[in-house]
Amino acid sequence: MHDPLLFQLFYIFVWAKLFGEVFERLHLPAVLGEIVAGIVIGPYCAGLIVPSEAIYSFAQLGAIFLLFSVGLETSPKDLLSVGHTSLYVALAGITVPFVFGFGFMMLRYHQPHEATFVAAAMVATSVGITARVLGDLRVLDTLPARIILGAAVFDDILGMILLSIVVGAVSTTGTAWLQLALTAAEAIGFALLMVFYAPRLVRRMEPGVERMSTQNAPLIIALALCLGLSFAAASIGMAAIIGAFFAGLAFAEYAPRWELRTRVFAINEFLAPFFFFSMGARLNPWVFDRRLLLSAIIISLLAFASKLLGCGLPALRSGWNTAIKVGVGMAPRGEVGLIVALVGLQMGVISQAAYGLVIFMTMATTLIAPPILKLLFHKDGVSSLAEPVLLERRSTVP
Amino acid sequence: MHDPLLFQLFYIFVWAKLFGEVFERLHLPAVLGEIVAGIVIGPYCAGLIVPSEAIYSFAQLGAIFLLFSVGLETSPKDLLSVGHTSLYVALAGITVPFVFGFGFMMLRYHQPHEATFVAAAMVATSVGITARVLGDLRVLDTLPARIILGAAVFDDILGMILLSIVVGAVSTTGTAWLQLALTAAEAIGFALLMVFYAPRLVRRMEPGVERMSTQNAPLIIALALCLGLSFAAASIGMAAIIGAFFAGLAFAEYAPRWELRTRVFAINEFLAPFFFFSMGARLNPWVFDRRLLLSAIIISLLAFASKLLGCGLPALRSGWNTAIKVGVGMAPRGEVGLIVALVGLQMGVISQAAYGLVIFMTMATTLIAPPILKLLFHKDGVSSLAEPVLLERRSTVP
Repeated sequence: MHDPLLFQLFYIFVWAKLFGEVFERLHLPAVLGEIVAGIVIGPYCAGLIVPSEAIYSFAQLGAIFLLFSVGLETSPKDLLSVGHTSLYVALAGITVPFVFGFGFMMLRYHQPHEATFVAAAMVATSVGITARVLGDLRVLDTLPARIILGAAVFDDILGMILLSIVVGAVSTTGTAWLQLALTAAEAIGFALLMVFYAPRLVRRMEPGVERMSTQNAPLIIALALCLGLSFAAASIGMAAIIGAFFAGLAFAEYAPRWELRTRVFAINEFLAPFFFFSMGARLNPWVFDRRLLLSAIIISLLAFASKLLGCGLPALRSGWNTAIKVGVGMAPRGEVGLIVALVGLQMGVISQAAYGLVIFMTMATTLIAPPILKLLFHKDGVSSLAEPVLLERRSTVP
Repeated sequence: MHDPLLFQLFYIFVWAKLFGEVFERLHLPAVLGEIVAGIVIGPYCAGLIVPSEAIYSFAQLGAIFLLFSVGLETSPKDLLSVGHTSLYVALAGITVPFVFGFGFMMLRYHQPHEATFVAAAMVATSVGITARVLGDLRVLDTLPARIILGAAVFDDILGMILLSIVVGAVSTTGTAWLQLALTAAEAIGFALLMVFYAPRLVRRMEPGVERMSTQNAPLIIALALCLGLSFAAASIGMAAIIGAFFAGLAFAEYAPRWELRTRVFAINEFLAPFFFFSMGARLNPWVFDRRLLLSAIIISLLAFASKLLGCGLPALRSGWNTAIKVGVGMAPRGEVGLIVALVGLQMGVISQAAYGLVIFMTMATTLIAPPILKLLFHKDGVSSLAEPVLLERRSTVP
């Protein structure tokens, strides 16, 4: 009885983790290894594993849980206290890359829809890598580190709002401005609701949840809300992951008390490799001819420069030194950008070439930023006083 | 964008947990509620949800993780120290129900293959319910409780060996005795290997695992082994869950140190409802005519009486009182029996009627045993000294 599902689950899990381990040993992010595993082992190169529909189901769920845990770590309470600098860093850090990305893609004669998706995929910072580097250097207590970690929180939420608008804009045929405004209002309303109202609701539910007879009731309720909001978001034309992210946000305050993070991370630990492997497996690396490679390099440089500019400028009043650190620290892109590209691919809006651009850009920014960041901090002479409290933050994402 | 996968995941999860909560409040086991949810909401009754192939994939994986955590809680070390009584209780407690079940099914003119599967499904005790009742009564320190918990460990392993033999016997056409003996030897060899050698191997791997660069390396290794052995077991013609169970066994010793249980339970918490719901959804309750209902009641009584006899007799030298408590405490059947029936259904060896018999028997024994057990202990006047240390044991299974 050769079981194809178990075969694929086993081999994908092992290959992804093997590549991840090799990448970690080379001091590269493990998730990049998992994506590369998908490219190398997947259908377009070695062809050892052609993921089945069931695997893509697991991958889809992996993306949902990935964003659920990003939400769980984004405490709306902290958000309201990190101050204006972080907010401006996030806002400009989203606008500039979007404009740069959209402009470049239009100049290269891509369709507006495709240009929109690629630009949206360039927006979201993945702060996990940066947090880890800062933690290793024990500089999490410094001003640039605090600005970065604060801005990353806003960045997540703004990125999600942008994605809803992009999906909404592409779903409606033509440029129906009224429709687009409605989607934008919907997305912002949803975000505000989840940031301000949902945590209060969870607080009110708390006694009831803890009185429930079901064992592990908080985890059950959180999982149910995660699945429910994902489904709801997909039903009203948003991406499912947006629902998952906001579900995480609602429970962020109670996550430590209910030990939600360890548990959701465990589910992640199991499902995420299927997502990252599938990301790689969907990429046909042979689309990279000389022209596309040139585009990919330019897009990567733009992605880096636009964050340096967008995030650096608002931090400039704290001095050049801080501004550059903030800009570089906000440069790495990660899972959100990848998922945006995937949504575009599944909606049939972006081509294999554009999908390849996004993956290339994600990998490039994630690889470039950490060494530069280390250099910048080392130049200062690193204080070894600050505790690496945030070292574990987002341990499963790049 | 109505997403059918997310729709089913959300509704099945919520319905299963709602029924579970209602059952808990009625002081009935939650998993029975989840199975009933599948029967009521599923295709044969309300028809609100007809689980898709993807859901059955999740359910299959749910069964694997269920058995993986049963294995994680079955420490081979404890096994070697619980003494002879527990071993004899387990051995006789497996033999008598198998003989009774097989005999009855043959008398009712069922096929030998079908009789074998139903009999095998009657074998495995699910000690979770009993452990919880004993914990609530604070009598986990008493002699009958210790005999029951010890015997349950042997029972799991012997049940797995029996299942391998049954699957092997049915897979080979005709009664190839040599083949059967080979399968039996294979299964016993596998069990011995996992009980005696695997924990030592894990102990030797320990420094390497803890030195790995991958985060949460122990969990990753454990998950990989779980998937790998499940796949391997299926490949050599055993049930996949047998591999998962023995993978759990290998890590049982290190489970507390590596915090494997909480993490694997979290994965379980998410996947198990899909398994139990699917179990119910596969049952056509309309097959229960008067004749089948009579069979179901007789099978349930036989299942109860056979454990009372098989497990009670070897405990008789500790007195009648202890013997009866042990017999009743070993009576509840659970997930292993259900999975055996499912394997039979999927192999096309048992009919809907026989599948219905097993589900009925599982539910009946699980419902009857706890009140009788409470009565027996209350009659004694319960000592409230013993700590409910094992209360949490197998919290997610009946």
